[in-house]
Amino acid sequence: MHSPTALQALIEKAIPQIDYPKYPVDLYAPIRYIMSLGGKRIRPVMVLMATELFTTEIEKAMDVALAIETFHNFTLVHDDIMDNAPLRRGKQTVHEKWGVNNAILSGDVMMVESNKHLSKVAVNVLKPVLDTFNATAQGVCEGQQLDMEFEQRNDVSIAEYLEMIRLKTAVLLGGAMKLGAIVGGASADEAELMYNFGENLGVAFQLQDDVLDVYGNPEKFGKQVGGDILANKKTFMHLKTLALAEVEETPYLTSVGGNQEDKIAQVTQLYNKYQIRELATLEMDKYLEKANTALDTLNVPEEKKTYFRELVQQILERDR
Amino acid sequence: MHSPTALQALIEKAIPQIDYPKYPVDLYAPIRYIMSLGGKRIRPVMVLMATELFTTEIEKAMDVALAIETFHNFTLVHDDIMDNAPLRRGKQTVHEKWGVNNAILSGDVMMVESNKHLSKVAVNVLKPVLDTFNATAQGVCEGQQLDMEFEQRNDVSIAEYLEMIRLKTAVLLGGAMKLGAIVGGASADEAELMYNFGENLGVAFQLQDDVLDVYGNPEKFGKQVGGDILANKKTFMHLKTLALAEVEETPYLTSVGGNQEDKIAQVTQLYNKYQIRELATLEMDKYLEKANTALDTLNVPEEKKTYFRELVQQILERDR
Repeated sequence: MHSPTALQALIEKAIPQIDYPKYPVDLYAPIRYIMSLGGKRIRPVMVLMATELFTTEIEKAMDVALAIETFHNFTLVHDDIMDNAPLRRGKQTVHEKWGVNNAILSGDVMMVESNKHLSKVAVNVLKPVLDTFNATAQGVCEGQQLDMEFEQRNDVSIAEYLEMIRLKTAVLLGGAMKLGAIVGGASADEAELMYNFGENLGVAFQLQDDVLDVYGNPEKFGKQVGGDILANKKTFMHLKTLALAEVEETPYLTSVGGNQEDKIAQVTQLYNKYQIRELATLEMDKYLEKANTALDTLNVPEEKKTYFRELVQQILERDR
Repeated sequence: MHSPTALQALIEKAIPQIDYPKYPVDLYAPIRYIMSLGGKRIRPVMVLMATELFTTEIEKAMDVALAIETFHNFTLVHDDIMDNAPLRRGKQTVHEKWGVNNAILSGDVMMVESNKHLSKVAVNVLKPVLDTFNATAQGVCEGQQLDMEFEQRNDVSIAEYLEMIRLKTAVLLGGAMKLGAIVGGASADEAELMYNFGENLGVAFQLQDDVLDVYGNPEKFGKQVGGDILANKKTFMHLKTLALAEVEETPYLTSVGGNQEDKIAQVTQLYNKYQIRELATLEMDKYLEKANTALDTLNVPEEKKTYFRELVQQILERDR
């Protein structure tokens, strides 16, 4: 078995070798740019990990891995336009560098590039691969739509939030796992178990990310601690606190402007008072348990599951 | 053989039956809206026409026809954002009605919907169908990129313009024809001939559209006569005139502001002086001849080609 780090290295090697057309220059330059910005390549690594559960020939899955990574980066390009974000991984976003119109169009062509990668898989798995990919892509778009709509609403429920992060974040991890399994020769049932593993891991991962926004070690977290608090983002923690807090406390959560450090301190105090971190962790653990159950059910030797167990463990342990 | 009108009726019947998800409402409402705005459904009709050259079972091609129409409408949604267009077919554009972010995202999900339609074709043609569709989609994006870039440039050559309209407009007609042929059971050579027919027809169609912008019957044309002139659009006619006119005449072509009727009259006078309409028609005829040659070479009974010959004839005769 390859370690996730070894698989990441394979992905990093494959990305610069993708043969995009040369012309029109400004249509393809943004694609090379965003694809080269790095990150942990979690999604394509998951594809290859899942493939390796069922076959040693992981190169079979490289096209799907690149399709997933290209699709993920396409969503970053378009989401950054919608969020009006100036920076991505510490560098200028595509629309800042090339303009909004160019960014829309380069994003569109990335979707085509994803589909070109996909179409290279063996014909005997092409149909299930397409069906899984399309369902995944659709879910991600639905998640982004809900995320945008929730910004404008004041009555978002916790169930709605969980459904939103399932679609926006977790479906793609589930899809990556399922696609890797299919290409590796898994049965439909096995592929579905891998989907369940990935999706539940994904929800837990996002809940963990919400917790780390408040309680993370600034040096390890990689984003501004308290960023969600300042943006009044309707996370699980925010919504849970709204549900539990006294009427006079809720303005701290929804206030706009004012001193940033004060706001972060006040909201964190509320979170502490209502033990929101513990409640979020309990919620997260439900999803991790489901992920582990899917893994338990999967009929492959336990030693092949080692790296998958570690994925779960990493979320359990990260900065607690 | 079904007439194009009969095929259009089949498309019009199929579109409202497409089963989009209900939720999130504002992600899918724009798709139903743009798909219902009508138009002549030229591209999906072409898919079905091409299929019927090779099989009587045209229903085999309906999914591909809907994929092509959905993709075409997706390009309209995103192009209208880029062009900042308020109206499409006399109605509000999607981004005017739902906002830019929503329009970006609904467009994205239309691309997924196109791919979902495509994935339903028979497995034995799935791979060539995907390859053809992806090459087509990529070409259309490249054409849109060139079109945007040309607005900012003052050194666009006629060859570049022809390449731009080939990509932006003609490749999709070629792709529609080729996809229909593949699904109908055509050989690779036959499918390629259909592509050539469609692509050459498409370039001729766009050149005709440029001519009609100036010389069209306002009641039949459906757009503002002189619209390209007022926008200083770098069409074949514009570029040819720039190449032929005296230095003191070129400011008429490139002026901004001023009286609109005067500008249209002045530029039309220049076009008349340099016989630009005739030159454009000669250029168009080259492409129509190539389209006819592709049709001649195709080894199917001549009576099956009737409606294809009429497509060529319609361009030859339209408002001359």
